[in-house]
Amino acid sequence: MSNANRFGEIFQVTSFGESHGEALGAVIEGCPAGIRFDEALLQNCLDRRRPGTAAGVSARQEPDRAEILSGIFEGRTLGTPICVVVRNQDARPKDYDAVAIAPRAGHADDVWREKFGHSDHRGGGRSSGRETLVRVIGGAFAQMFLRESHPKLIVNSFLQSLGPMQILIEDRDANLRWGVRTEKFAEIEKFLLGLKTEGDSVGGVAEVVVNHVPKNLGQPVAHKLKADLTAAYMSIGATTGVELGGGFSLAHKKGTEVHGTVDSEFTAAAGSAIESSVYGGIRGGISTGEPIVMRVAFKPTSSILDVAKRGRHDPCIVPRALPVLEAMTYMVLADHVLWSRLDRAT
Amino acid sequence: MSNANRFGEIFQVTSFGESHGEALGAVIEGCPAGIRFDEALLQNCLDRRRPGTAAGVSARQEPDRAEILSGIFEGRTLGTPICVVVRNQDARPKDYDAVAIAPRAGHADDVWREKFGHSDHRGGGRSSGRETLVRVIGGAFAQMFLRESHPKLIVNSFLQSLGPMQILIEDRDANLRWGVRTEKFAEIEKFLLGLKTEGDSVGGVAEVVVNHVPKNLGQPVAHKLKADLTAAYMSIGATTGVELGGGFSLAHKKGTEVHGTVDSEFTAAAGSAIESSVYGGIRGGISTGEPIVMRVAFKPTSSILDVAKRGRHDPCIVPRALPVLEAMTYMVLADHVLWSRLDRAT
Amino acid sequence: MSNANRFGEIFQVTSFGESHGEALGAVIEGCPAGIRFDEALLQNCLDRRRPGTAAGVSARQEPDRAEILSGIFEGRTLGTPICVVVRNQDARPKDYDAVAIAPRAGHADDVWREKFGHSDHRGGGRSSGRETLVRVIGGAFAQMFLRESHPKLIVNSFLQSLGPMQILIEDRDANLRWGVRTEKFAEIEKFLLGLKTEGDSVGGVAEVVVNHVPKNLGQPVAHKLKADLTAAYMSIGATTGVELGGGFSLAHKKGTEVHGTVDSEFTAAAGSAIESSVYGGIRGGISTGEPIVMRVAFKPTSSILDVAKRGRHDPCIVPRALPVLEAMTYMVLADHVLWSRLDRAT
Amino acid sequence: MSNANRFGEIFQVTSFGESHGEALGAVIEGCPAGIRFDEALLQNCLDRRRPGTAAGVSARQEPDRAEILSGIFEGRTLGTPICVVVRNQDARPKDYDAVAIAPRAGHADDVWREKFGHSDHRGGGRSSGRETLVRVIGGAFAQMFLRESHPKLIVNSFLQSLGPMQILIEDRDANLRWGVRTEKFAEIEKFLLGLKTEGDSVGGVAEVVVNHVPKNLGQPVAHKLKADLTAAYMSIGATTGVELGGGFSLAHKKGTEVHGTVDSEFTAAAGSAIESSVYGGIRGGISTGEPIVMRVAFKPTSSILDVAKRGRHDPCIVPRALPVLEAMTYMVLADHVLWSRLDRAT
Repeated sequence: MSNANRFGEIFQVTSFGESHGEALGAVIEGCPAGIRFDEALLQNCLDRRRPGTAAGVSARQEPDRAEILSGIFEGRTLGTPICVVVRNQDARPKDYDAVAIAPRAGHADDVWREKFGHSDHRGGGRSSGRETLVRVIGGAFAQMFLRESHPKLIVNSFLQSLGPMQILIEDRDANLRWGVRTEKFAEIEKFLLGLKTEGDSVGGVAEVVVNHVPKNLGQPVAHKLKADLTAAYMSIGATTGVELGGGFSLAHKKGTEVHGTVDSEFTAAAGSAIESSVYGGIRGGISTGEPIVMRVAFKPTSSILDVAKRGRHDPCIVPRALPVLEAMTYMVLADHVLWSRLDRAT
Repeated sequence: MSNANRFGEIFQVTSFGESHGEALGAVIEGCPAGIRFDEALLQNCLDRRRPGTAAGVSARQEPDRAEILSGIFEGRTLGTPICVVVRNQDARPKDYDAVAIAPRAGHADDVWREKFGHSDHRGGGRSSGRETLVRVIGGAFAQMFLRESHPKLIVNSFLQSLGPMQILIEDRDANLRWGVRTEKFAEIEKFLLGLKTEGDSVGGVAEVVVNHVPKNLGQPVAHKLKADLTAAYMSIGATTGVELGGGFSLAHKKGTEVHGTVDSEFTAAAGSAIESSVYGGIRGGISTGEPIVMRVAFKPTSSILDVAKRGRHDPCIVPRALPVLEAMTYMVLADHVLWSRLDRAT
Repeated sequence: MSNANRFGEIFQVTSFGESHGEALGAVIEGCPAGIRFDEALLQNCLDRRRPGTAAGVSARQEPDRAEILSGIFEGRTLGTPICVVVRNQDARPKDYDAVAIAPRAGHADDVWREKFGHSDHRGGGRSSGRETLVRVIGGAFAQMFLRESHPKLIVNSFLQSLGPMQILIEDRDANLRWGVRTEKFAEIEKFLLGLKTEGDSVGGVAEVVVNHVPKNLGQPVAHKLKADLTAAYMSIGATTGVELGGGFSLAHKKGTEVHGTVDSEFTAAAGSAIESSVYGGIRGGISTGEPIVMRVAFKPTSSILDVAKRGRHDPCIVPRALPVLEAMTYMVLADHVLWSRLDRAT
Repeated sequence: MSNANRFGEIFQVTSFGESHGEALGAVIEGCPAGIRFDEALLQNCLDRRRPGTAAGVSARQEPDRAEILSGIFEGRTLGTPICVVVRNQDARPKDYDAVAIAPRAGHADDVWREKFGHSDHRGGGRSSGRETLVRVIGGAFAQMFLRESHPKLIVNSFLQSLGPMQILIEDRDANLRWGVRTEKFAEIEKFLLGLKTEGDSVGGVAEVVVNHVPKNLGQPVAHKLKADLTAAYMSIGATTGVELGGGFSLAHKKGTEVHGTVDSEFTAAAGSAIESSVYGGIRGGISTGEPIVMRVAFKPTSSILDVAKRGRHDPCIVPRALPVLEAMTYMVLADHVLWSRLDRAT
């Protein structure tokens, strides 16, 4: 049962590495042969996730350079396992000596130690958010794979709220950072910096949208697409909830309010909108071809008060979680695109 | 990739069967040898889920008798696969001839046909809610297993809301149906009957609570306990969202509101309450030993209007989903109890 | 780790049932949708394996009728799990009461009891050769699947030796029973009957040949086609050795004798013969398109002396093992045919 | 189905890397926490396998230094994935430019290219024997794990024959190289050097013996210990056959010759000898506690004639395959020792 550290059934990403150990990395298996390797895409994904790139995020300085050890030859995948390694450079294990004695509230330090008897306390070891860079590596390869068969498919993610602050996503299509215009962006950054000064943190809600997703992805009973996506999101440290389409709000409605519209005023356009806003682009566990819409809740960062002021921590994890959510989404989709090759006799 | 129909990594339940085919059933693998088989428990679980037992639920008459084909000998498990079969008796495939031509809104009829090219349209075939009886079988065996090593562990589930109706869970410990006293129960039944008369339906929110859960369950990266539980719930047809502990509400809070309390006024009792109400009994993906608390949202049943009045459908799926949620929870816990046997050197 | 009873990675066959329990059966997962179901083929495969059909084989009378519980609709597979059950009818558990006290030499009775603490001693329980009927069911479905995409592919198996008796396979193509003409067949049957009278048994060697196998089957490192076929054969009770192509005889040769011929006198025809007789149709773990040739050794049946005279046992297991070897071969090939759909980008 | 490059079900070793790429390596998952890391053992295993250490083996000069990237902290395993990397240093990809045009006879160059469309031809790429260093890494960790729970368990392997030369294993217990005394060793080396001069090669048979193996290892149907061991050996490039205990010789015997002795003259000592020499220490797919004895056949190295004289190739692969066979054996045993933790209720 050693898939404790592995994502995916066919397109599989195995994650290894401790936050303050030698390196973190991924082994990507099941990626077909002949896919063009895009180094710039990979590095760009890592850059979006890494700390130290914006105000209000952890000041740990890590260049996070990806090194390819195997699986790529003459610019294309070989169909063999792709091993990608990122060395830890700004590791400051000494910062965490106190943790060896007094685990931090809300962190996993104590539960890991209890579970395994022996654990690496430095910066959370393997329970650190730093592990998510491996997801980003896996997601980048999933994206390279999907790009060839489904060039229009795209995963985007947005901040919907940060603590008490609601954020109106102004433009889902333009390439705006966090989906908001410059002024709003500045306002958010100011809010986050204020929290850092106070030694406080906030949670938030992120929205993930997949456009131009093919039909027929998902296996109908145990590996429903919605189950695999939610599991992928809930495998990220700070997540506390996931919704598909209408989500929790549907629970409070009547069937005639929800499905009735589909029957009575059905047109292609309305149908499409309903498929996404109500069903989230997934019915019977399978993608319908309409945009997939999901939302993910994150609790406030656990590092608060003195710890937050002193350490290199994020007052809110959600902005940095966006590329991770996108990566997990690409990985799940790549897995199911391959899986769907097995559905039919020919 | 044939685990499309299988739940669990070690304690595995493979589900087979179509709603209006010969039979449905489960093969349970990975259940250790020597577990006492409790036929009454199994049948009781099936009875709680089956249609036709209460006002306001589907009138399909199925005795749902479980037949054991293998894996049990002299009242105890053999460590070999346990095959359990439930024959379909009140199958009325003719009722669904129209579906072959016109798939039902909100159902999976059309997506299955599209995906596989060939599908069993009768009563939803394998996408039918009837498939969940297999989960209940698997859950009953998981419960038998857990009972021996963790006799106090118990999974309960409650209705938290049904459409617009909020339900105060009056007593989580007493064995009240749906966690409410008789008067409230009658009120709910009346509400559901009213909906059926109108040809309408509602969604709802269910709460799942696990008491006396052992520490150290969950694998820390890809098979966090929260990820496996969420995936298990999202593998049920009508679910649209899942929350752990404080869930979405935490996303709107500050760290000092959430974690601060833990640090400042920490006492054993408060700590325990916070672990469950905030973290849901799971931190770092691993159970802390405090009660696990999760909530699951369901959309309104898709069968509405004429279909609802004519057919044998539930105006709200949530009451019948409770034993399914409990079963999925038992299965995930059994899986992780076995998995935790592999954590340490000795 | 509950794949203790499951064969295959994509085309998966899960085996359940005890020899003298209620039933044995298979759940076949990963069989694509739309495959024509051939009931006659399935029953014919079961008939070839079952006891009581020829002199010199066990006299247990079992009609071995297959019942389909799921996964087939209107004569074609649904892409959902196919459950097939065979009820035990001539179970005589009382015959084995002595085994509960004194396990039989060479059987697995004692090791099972030791391992699991609790075991079904009746007729070997799950370690009985009767379990192999499940393989035959799985193989029949694999054959139905392969027939559609590779209509000429055929697996044949032959007796190469029975104890001290060498058997010249007279015709690999004609549909001769055991590959020999009638006179030879009668001679073999007489030999086996003689052994039964003496209360003795023999081992034997079987040859498996696959013709018209597609190229490119097999995954090159851990799931080499030769590794999967060997494991499949060694999962059968009485097997003690497996060879590919030139097998053990190659170990005693020089490279110039073996490979030299390929280089020096290479022609299409010779190349083909060498590919099969030397490399067995598999190089680098992958099928080359030439016939696959393997040989499997079986030890003599353990039931000898008084047990053999009294009980319903085979003096030699190899004749009845042939359809099991063929079935395992079809299953491995179906698995790899599906797997090869995932090799390339498009 | 991305376990194309993964060995084991619980104790899993994922292999990556091309022969003339950046590096090869392993990710070891499922190794419990708290195991003492023995760097000297790991390096010693690598040294035994690596080229350039004895006359008559490939002259490729590779120090094969293992670098630990993750999973070890303060000298003990963390229960997290262990990534070990070995950089390629004496890679001479230019040597293989001709292969890009003319694949080598008996090698896998052409089948890989055919299968994947795009392949790394340099030194066989991933089909190179160099990939087996990853098995040796995995085996070293399996040995570290087994040493703690079963300190006396030991896997040894011996040359039984090299081409036409039979080798009498003089001492299985003493730490003799290849199990033979110095004079014999010199004779073998001379024989191999002669072959290299002639541009020829030989096959051979190796024997693997496991002493002090615990009872109860193996899962009884699909993961019989004999099936897993043979699959492990058949996953090595040049293997063409595997035998357990009496192997093919049993096929030519009568039951009374084989099993009769057990019944008639059974004593503890004789019983033990029979269990190993006849049954190979495995009955019903499960280890009996007696020594496990297996034999593996290898075909002659494919690199002959001019290629052999020019290149850096082994005239016989078997001597260097011994540590690989041992490593695969340790890996399978570690897997089943962990798996057996799941057999019983408590």
